[in-house]
Amino acid sequence: MLAKAGIISQAEARKIERGLRAIEREIEAGKFHFDVADEDIHMAIERRLRELIGPVAGKLHTARSRNDQVVLDLRLYLSEELEEVIELTRALRRSLVSVAEKNVETVMPGYTHLQRAQPVTLAHHVLAYVEMFGRDQRRFAAARESARVMPLGSGALAATTLPIQRQAVARELGFPTVSENSLDAVSDRDFVIDFLAAAALCMVHLSRMSEELIMWSSAEFGFVSLPDEFSSGSSMMPQKKNPDLLELIRAKTGRVMGNLQAMLTVLKGLPLAYNSDLQEDKERVFDTLDTLKPSLALSAKLWPQLVFKTDAMHKAAGGWALATDLAEYLVRRGVPFREAYECVGRMVRDALAQAREPEHMTLADLRRYSPLFGPQALALLSAQGSVRARKVVGGPAPQTVRRRLAELRKELWP
Amino acid sequence: MLAKAGIISQAEARKIERGLRAIEREIEAGKFHFDVADEDIHMAIERRLRELIGPVAGKLHTARSRNDQVVLDLRLYLSEELEEVIELTRALRRSLVSVAEKNVETVMPGYTHLQRAQPVTLAHHVLAYVEMFGRDQRRFAAARESARVMPLGSGALAATTLPIQRQAVARELGFPTVSENSLDAVSDRDFVIDFLAAAALCMVHLSRMSEELIMWSSAEFGFVSLPDEFSSGSSMMPQKKNPDLLELIRAKTGRVMGNLQAMLTVLKGLPLAYNSDLQEDKERVFDTLDTLKPSLALSAKLWPQLVFKTDAMHKAAGGWALATDLAEYLVRRGVPFREAYECVGRMVRDALAQAREPEHMTLADLRRYSPLFGPQALALLSAQGSVRARKVVGGPAPQTVRRRLAELRKELWP
Amino acid sequence: MLAKAGIISQAEARKIERGLRAIEREIEAGKFHFDVADEDIHMAIERRLRELIGPVAGKLHTARSRNDQVVLDLRLYLSEELEEVIELTRALRRSLVSVAEKNVETVMPGYTHLQRAQPVTLAHHVLAYVEMFGRDQRRFAAARESARVMPLGSGALAATTLPIQRQAVARELGFPTVSENSLDAVSDRDFVIDFLAAAALCMVHLSRMSEELIMWSSAEFGFVSLPDEFSSGSSMMPQKKNPDLLELIRAKTGRVMGNLQAMLTVLKGLPLAYNSDLQEDKERVFDTLDTLKPSLALSAKLWPQLVFKTDAMHKAAGGWALATDLAEYLVRRGVPFREAYECVGRMVRDALAQAREPEHMTLADLRRYSPLFGPQALALLSAQGSVRARKVVGGPAPQTVRRRLAELRKELWP
Amino acid sequence: MLAKAGIISQAEARKIERGLRAIEREIEAGKFHFDVADEDIHMAIERRLRELIGPVAGKLHTARSRNDQVVLDLRLYLSEELEEVIELTRALRRSLVSVAEKNVETVMPGYTHLQRAQPVTLAHHVLAYVEMFGRDQRRFAAARESARVMPLGSGALAATTLPIQRQAVARELGFPTVSENSLDAVSDRDFVIDFLAAAALCMVHLSRMSEELIMWSSAEFGFVSLPDEFSSGSSMMPQKKNPDLLELIRAKTGRVMGNLQAMLTVLKGLPLAYNSDLQEDKERVFDTLDTLKPSLALSAKLWPQLVFKTDAMHKAAGGWALATDLAEYLVRRGVPFREAYECVGRMVRDALAQAREPEHMTLADLRRYSPLFGPQALALLSAQGSVRARKVVGGPAPQTVRRRLAELRKELWP
Repeated sequence: MLAKAGIISQAEARKIERGLRAIEREIEAGKFHFDVADEDIHMAIERRLRELIGPVAGKLHTARSRNDQVVLDLRLYLSEELEEVIELTRALRRSLVSVAEKNVETVMPGYTHLQRAQPVTLAHHVLAYVEMFGRDQRRFAAARESARVMPLGSGALAATTLPIQRQAVARELGFPTVSENSLDAVSDRDFVIDFLAAAALCMVHLSRMSEELIMWSSAEFGFVSLPDEFSSGSSMMPQKKNPDLLELIRAKTGRVMGNLQAMLTVLKGLPLAYNSDLQEDKERVFDTLDTLKPSLALSAKLWPQLVFKTDAMHKAAGGWALATDLAEYLVRRGVPFREAYECVGRMVRDALAQAREPEHMTLADLRRYSPLFGPQALALLSAQGSVRARKVVGGPAPQTVRRRLAELRKELWP
Repeated sequence: MLAKAGIISQAEARKIERGLRAIEREIEAGKFHFDVADEDIHMAIERRLRELIGPVAGKLHTARSRNDQVVLDLRLYLSEELEEVIELTRALRRSLVSVAEKNVETVMPGYTHLQRAQPVTLAHHVLAYVEMFGRDQRRFAAARESARVMPLGSGALAATTLPIQRQAVARELGFPTVSENSLDAVSDRDFVIDFLAAAALCMVHLSRMSEELIMWSSAEFGFVSLPDEFSSGSSMMPQKKNPDLLELIRAKTGRVMGNLQAMLTVLKGLPLAYNSDLQEDKERVFDTLDTLKPSLALSAKLWPQLVFKTDAMHKAAGGWALATDLAEYLVRRGVPFREAYECVGRMVRDALAQAREPEHMTLADLRRYSPLFGPQALALLSAQGSVRARKVVGGPAPQTVRRRLAELRKELWP
Repeated sequence: MLAKAGIISQAEARKIERGLRAIEREIEAGKFHFDVADEDIHMAIERRLRELIGPVAGKLHTARSRNDQVVLDLRLYLSEELEEVIELTRALRRSLVSVAEKNVETVMPGYTHLQRAQPVTLAHHVLAYVEMFGRDQRRFAAARESARVMPLGSGALAATTLPIQRQAVARELGFPTVSENSLDAVSDRDFVIDFLAAAALCMVHLSRMSEELIMWSSAEFGFVSLPDEFSSGSSMMPQKKNPDLLELIRAKTGRVMGNLQAMLTVLKGLPLAYNSDLQEDKERVFDTLDTLKPSLALSAKLWPQLVFKTDAMHKAAGGWALATDLAEYLVRRGVPFREAYECVGRMVRDALAQAREPEHMTLADLRRYSPLFGPQALALLSAQGSVRARKVVGGPAPQTVRRRLAELRKELWP
Repeated sequence: MLAKAGIISQAEARKIERGLRAIEREIEAGKFHFDVADEDIHMAIERRLRELIGPVAGKLHTARSRNDQVVLDLRLYLSEELEEVIELTRALRRSLVSVAEKNVETVMPGYTHLQRAQPVTLAHHVLAYVEMFGRDQRRFAAARESARVMPLGSGALAATTLPIQRQAVARELGFPTVSENSLDAVSDRDFVIDFLAAAALCMVHLSRMSEELIMWSSAEFGFVSLPDEFSSGSSMMPQKKNPDLLELIRAKTGRVMGNLQAMLTVLKGLPLAYNSDLQEDKERVFDTLDTLKPSLALSAKLWPQLVFKTDAMHKAAGGWALATDLAEYLVRRGVPFREAYECVGRMVRDALAQAREPEHMTLADLRRYSPLFGPQALALLSAQGSVRARKVVGGPAPQTVRRRLAELRKELWP
């Protein structure tokens, strides 16, 4: 660009580029010598360039300042890393979708307040997480766009008198747009906050999923058995499997939330333009990536290896958790909701008093509570029947879940 | 919708609607009686509806649950509030643009590390904030889209057996889309986090602006005089004006950051689906809106009333802060940047030793350091000249700033 | 004090005191008229005093400033509130101790990683919380001492020229000490942080306890039944009891953590001395007290009403969770720990393969794994036996727990 | 202890101790081989011990578990580190006291709301920080006591059947007390929170001090010149000194606040007893120490090298900031405060209108506003006079500050 704009000659540009290519090879070959005296990577490269091509190396830094360069570096880096994070999020969703596809009919209890509430299926439950990570994926994509603003040319804070072509640089770097204010450009770290906020929320989702698996793998729930690779055992108590990985993911959520908080605190009350406080950005970003990426990757790897104890799930899904469906049956027959609800409530209380399971109810039993009950009501008297009947968009019925899975398959395996 | 889907009759629907309209009028007239025994607004309305239209009121709650209703309420509320927040953000930007338009030529120092670095203009400085709040505006718009997902039909957690038409409800409520998983729908508060994160960052921007005005209004800077309305005085020390409002905005940033952190903490590790922990969402949202909206509105009101002491600004912008421009002059003449930088460095050190201001330098003086200096270099020897020369996109030159202002005027006064 | 120091006359002091007493009665009787124009409580009282006793009211504010007064008010307020918080913490501990006293022999599983690990007793488990809240009690006491520093006399920031007697004022207000630096005194809010940090940690403890009760009250654990007063039911599903209160306490932990974070953020980077940012302190303190106090009080009220399902607990405590004790038996016989551990590990694996419970093992069975097993080893082959054997200080053995309970009874019912 | 309690023989104990001493020497000599397969330091040592002394090494782990060992390690480590932190805090206070001792008469403005309010001295200002760090020192000491509770013997969660002597172990390790509940002991990280909260508040104090020095070193304030060692310059602009170190300290406050928040989040809602989530404690502690210790040490090193521009300070302290003292003069003569305040307010307004400085006022001038002004009032008409008159405890008068310095010298150089 400097050559095209006539700020340096074509010959100088070629010489500099050749030098930089040589340095690139040295770095890739691990032969580049880093020296603390160079202070930063930019000075290190310019120093080496001078050794390779002589004083013309001094033209490398033309129309640049450390302040606009460091923020460019971070934007380039984060933009690339976010591509990877997005792909990891997609991979996790693919992994969950594959598990769901195998469990469209696997009935299990749905919980509110950690109390069994209504039967759902494992597929339906897993798809709740696919939705969450779908939002995370979009959030990471938005954070990436937020990072892709080209700041070079902003100088230390006040731009440059040199006739540079900023849009051309943006194009070459693959950035769709350039920053519109030099003071803002060198002091803006909003894109870091966007990333950290998206990462914190994604970790919150991972922690919710981990919490559930930890509970499901307890003796009390007994819904799942963890693969050895993701748990630590005890040589004395072979049945004990500690869900270490899941506990660590749950814990590290706090860490990423702390990184978000730290960076917001750094920016709060900071006057324009560049201040060294901004240097804290890099460690917060690195630490967050080092936490987030393996958390996503390991979760994706874990799910296909989980062994679900579908009998225990099915057993826990039984009982009167399907009562709401019976009430809705009456609603369809014209009974006001409140009335239907009370009528079925009476039936459940009586049945519990007599320890009767829904499967053992006859049509006559039902009609004792309302003459509106017909034969189709009997189909609701099992967890499967209950699940099958809830086929509205977003519901757990196998046909609904299969339709959603088909959409997700198209999206995730394009 | 219930009538269209044949779940209730058209007559019932009309009766319920008439009843609800009557209740609406009672609420607007302040005549509606709220009773703690009703537990929540939904029950209060159903109770009153029953008084007005009899047992058919029991059909109001058909195919609904408190769990999907509360999240719908919050989504509707936040969606509306965010429209207002977006408009307040635009109004602040308009206010700042108007101040900038009057100060395109008002030279002032640009700072890095709170040290005077290079001359800029007040317009250029103010536009840095217009960019920040522009990003906030986009973030609030994204948060609003995040809120506009229609959850009704998800029931308590597991959808409904009733043949409802969810997309139709979404259309009537003005929501572009419906939730795709009932377990997720009743437990998802991502849209709250999206709002709180956007609000926290916007407050950070407001705090940065406030911090600068607090410093600018100190005796030491003396750049600005605050209007009485926005400061508290002292009857004994009439010259003292305490920037209370600005200090409060700066402080309340911590509060909104705390709300974000609180809500992330609430969600961390929460199993599916609905848990009462989620009730904390509303107070965090209300408190954030009650903080954010007046902070935006008062900042917008404040700026046009600020009295800028342009003489003090101009004076502080003088001196050798323009040295970088001289170095760039040499760069344009082919001198490598590092060499040019060192040459001008020598000149500045000598001038400071002799207490010579740039305005007093002659061409001969300049040429003592480099024969490449020509007559145009003299134009750079004043803060104005320096500013005028930095006309690259994003730079402070009046012509560049005027172009950006024209774009902003088009965007903000459509 | 002003009269004793000769700054005002005894007659004036008496007149002012009489006036203030009259105002106190007006406030207590609800007859005091507050006017927004008074700006704050101090001005309101001085205005009313002037109405009652004339111009000598103007001497009330002698040697005082709003800046030292507001911090005194907050210190007095927090000091009194903390007395109550400490008493509430003690009451919660008493409540827990009473539950423990009734359950010294109630065997239940102890968990690590939410996996059953070794049998303990309910009393032992509950006492873990008594220890936690004991630390909170000490932390609140330290926060109270931190609040009890008398700032009056610091003026707006730079003390006063009047010959006041600060220690005398401190004595009258019941404060053990006076602040040593006027700039620090008006800008110090460390005592607020001390309180908020103690409150956040106490809420974390309450949230841990709540989390456990939520899990224990699930169908899967089935360890406890919540009283109706502290849970919400479902008219249709009478067996469902939602632990709302516990979920709310768990959630509100995030809120108090947010308050702590908010206040730290307010103080970060604030120059000396008084800044209006500090006004944020009061709402953070009020909101924290309004959250903490009921959380403590309701938890104390809840515990005695819990119905423990000791059969389920006992059943869950059984099985090979006592294997560690057998290994330690061998250690006492001189077998190195690692070796003993592996030997018992083999036994457990074989037993599990044959579905044999420890109760069914004979001495001969044990001796097949090690000849060192003697008849006393059989006593370890039940959860009770296992618990009884762990009688070291801090252990779950009934005799140890009773000793600790006796100490706590002495401390908490003095 | 194991030998004294008869759990292992004296010979075995001697053998194990000799082996451990040998390992200690290997570690100190850098010859110890760490192997990832050992999982942790405890296993690594036991493995090496076995190589050195044979199977009796298997007795090392007797009556111990990884869960009680890791918390002991952290308690020992933090206890030692806190001794160093306390000493660093004392060293910073000594450094500040030394600066104060040289500046007891150096007049400067005291600020409220960043507006010049009343004259104080540099010594008085610096002592405000000495008070703050004095509180930090006490807080670190309390955090250290909180760490010094001996958990060994708690086993994995449920203590041990072996007849160990826990108090004896505590005595040998220099801990004043043992934990009273095994479940609590392995899951308690309150002492980590105590440290992180104390560290966060200390960093807040360091950030406040840094913020002031950053402002004081701006051209606008011009109160201080930073040593080259603690600032970065510009070869072209030799007068520019960027306060990098101070900006970094200010920024890293957010990081430590984030660590506190992260650890609170980790603990929130965690069931008893040990969970792997607790592993996050170590990195939060290490990172906090790595931030806090150099921040304290560098601040202590910085202060004696600061060059104060006392002329600029003195000049800024002048003017009518002393008006409050004149009002108090009238109060001493019996004028009610409000009246005195208004009278002096008139005088200041007139003087400002005529651009008259206090130094130029005569007794006749004063008496035009109140006949009660006497010759001693003239002594108040300079910043020095004003400062000297405020000699109440905690005030800025040189005699008061000298008394406080003498107390501090006794405390800090015992």
